[in-house]
Amino acid sequence: MLFLFTDFGSADIYAGQVKAVLLREARGVPVIDLTHDAPAFNVRAGAHLLAALAAQLPPASVTLAVIDPGVGGAREALAVNADGRWYVGPDNGLISVIAARAAARNFWCITWRPPELAASFHGRDLFAPVAAAIARGEFPAGKAAPLARLDVDFGGDDLAEVIHLDHYGNALTGLRARGLPRATRIVANGEWIAHARVFSDVAAGEVFWYEDSLGLVEIAGNACSAGAKLGLTVGQPVGIGA
Amino acid sequence: MLFLFTDFGSADIYAGQVKAVLLREARGVPVIDLTHDAPAFNVRAGAHLLAALAAQLPPASVTLAVIDPGVGGAREALAVNADGRWYVGPDNGLISVIAARAAARNFWCITWRPPELAASFHGRDLFAPVAAAIARGEFPAGKAAPLARLDVDFGGDDLAEVIHLDHYGNALTGLRARGLPRATRIVANGEWIAHARVFSDVAAGEVFWYEDSLGLVEIAGNACSAGAKLGLTVGQPVGIGA
Amino acid sequence: MLFLFTDFGSADIYAGQVKAVLLREARGVPVIDLTHDAPAFNVRAGAHLLAALAAQLPPASVTLAVIDPGVGGAREALAVNADGRWYVGPDNGLISVIAARAAARNFWCITWRPPELAASFHGRDLFAPVAAAIARGEFPAGKAAPLARLDVDFGGDDLAEVIHLDHYGNALTGLRARGLPRATRIVANGEWIAHARVFSDVAAGEVFWYEDSLGLVEIAGNACSAGAKLGLTVGQPVGIGA
Repeated sequence: MLFLFTDFGSADIYAGQVKAVLLREARGVPVIDLTHDAPAFNVRAGAHLLAALAAQLPPASVTLAVIDPGVGGAREALAVNADGRWYVGPDNGLISVIAARAAARNFWCITWRPPELAASFHGRDLFAPVAAAIARGEFPAGKAAPLARLDVDFGGDDLAEVIHLDHYGNALTGLRARGLPRATRIVANGEWIAHARVFSDVAAGEVFWYEDSLGLVEIAGNACSAGAKLGLTVGQPVGIGA
Repeated sequence: MLFLFTDFGSADIYAGQVKAVLLREARGVPVIDLTHDAPAFNVRAGAHLLAALAAQLPPASVTLAVIDPGVGGAREALAVNADGRWYVGPDNGLISVIAARAAARNFWCITWRPPELAASFHGRDLFAPVAAAIARGEFPAGKAAPLARLDVDFGGDDLAEVIHLDHYGNALTGLRARGLPRATRIVANGEWIAHARVFSDVAAGEVFWYEDSLGLVEIAGNACSAGAKLGLTVGQPVGIGA
Repeated sequence: MLFLFTDFGSADIYAGQVKAVLLREARGVPVIDLTHDAPAFNVRAGAHLLAALAAQLPPASVTLAVIDPGVGGAREALAVNADGRWYVGPDNGLISVIAARAAARNFWCITWRPPELAASFHGRDLFAPVAAAIARGEFPAGKAAPLARLDVDFGGDDLAEVIHLDHYGNALTGLRARGLPRATRIVANGEWIAHARVFSDVAAGEVFWYEDSLGLVEIAGNACSAGAKLGLTVGQPVGIGA
């Protein structure tokens, strides 16, 4: 299976162009949109969101991961195998959190270049053909050289920031919830937030934190927007209290 | 065919996770997004929108239907066969309008639980595997028990409310248009609205009602937003005048 | 392959209905969303955006192209073969720019009508079955008559207007960049804009123009919204300076 994790915009013209390449070059392989609304100018937040989503991806899946403000500049193009799953994208840190958390990892620098390469759209012209080649089992032959380490590496530690505001207004953080006692309080934008197990355990209009379906600390509201209530934005710091 | 009707947000991270499960568990079955922007906190409006869309679904199709503010709480999980089409989702009324309007219907309570079940994302962990099992023809074996009646049942009557505001600004209502005389006027937010057959029959900027492509009374504007002009929102009452 | 280029809204209920028809009538043919957020009330801008995207479409692909404010009125329904690629949609100019730029083109007027045809949704009821018939190789048999010329023809010349504002805030224009000297400046909303090769060549917050991945003159900003900075909207004129 091929997965797409990008900031191309689900309501825009870019994801379709990438899919046309994938379907042409890897016929019959299902292509699934994880999201096209990853945070456009915050690679670090995106890296943590991708790492949380990646835990669910099937073995041997290939994910094209693109938040790429430096496209066309000096940053390298990357293929990573982390615990058997593949990732293709820019060497700007986006794939580094997954890699750091994997038990086994291998890096390749993509050396191949297509005959026509738009300086602003490596997702379509470079990463998609490489992802398709991996899906076909024809990688790295002629396309890449082994790489010892990443240029930009955020490491595998948690990130004490809001990494995604979903359309309900819930704020996902880069903190993994496993092991956090339920008595823990989370602080965001000066507000202390108590734990609840799930939405229906608090009154409508109330804000709480819980371990969400990705295993993250999420600041949520029952039938209301926690983000709007607390004034949260992607990149905002959050803290763990007692 | 598998259909998705949810409030997960087309620009968010949830639909992709559900599709990954469906494609893994029901390989080769096409998956189609009906919408991921169903009204998040209005199950009744969603139930009428789903019922209108369902009339077009192919026989034996399986629809995963999720607007589920009570997820993780006491509400049951449901599979419904209505006139040969399948629906999987929460027992909170969402599937009840379709069921009430069907000539034949059967209900099952989903008793199976997956090894890992996120309290906040039954769409991914519970409903998707069950929908895939139905698509494979392996249901209800070991997954469900027959059910006599729904916990929450809105019945099959029309709903005199706005049930969806589309991105053009047109307001779909829960009123079925069949049989309504063309001289009928619709009232919404204190405004009386006359009938026209189609957009190009009125002047640009004018608001009218017509029988839309789902068979519903729809308040629309030619090259303008009827919703903005009349201040319409989902859940707002509409009336039928003379 | 089947492509969709519409103004149905990626976050709305229309594209899914069209796909259900395509998958039912052309089983196994991949369907790709180019965009569902083409400019709803600006057919000319949409025609130029479609023409730019079309250059990448594979040979023999079929594109359902719908921006159709006149649906249900007097405008005809159209199938076009331009340089081997197929397009189906309204005869309102939307397909005319592609046709005018093609080396070879053939037009058909769609004479077939389905048993049930919603006046407001030819995309689902008329264009989708015809697109599927073309994908199956069963066209024009019984469905269309040859046509000498289009009713509405915008011609193949460039359009000196903003034709799309993407979600980053970049403004695509209907000007093809090939051959434009790099010293050229573009003027939009009274502002003169200099050339850069790619985003990372200018400082964050700076606006520039460049030849984008569709070959168009695009007014872009590095880590900022050029559209917001310059007050750009679809349809706004742009000029070429020295």
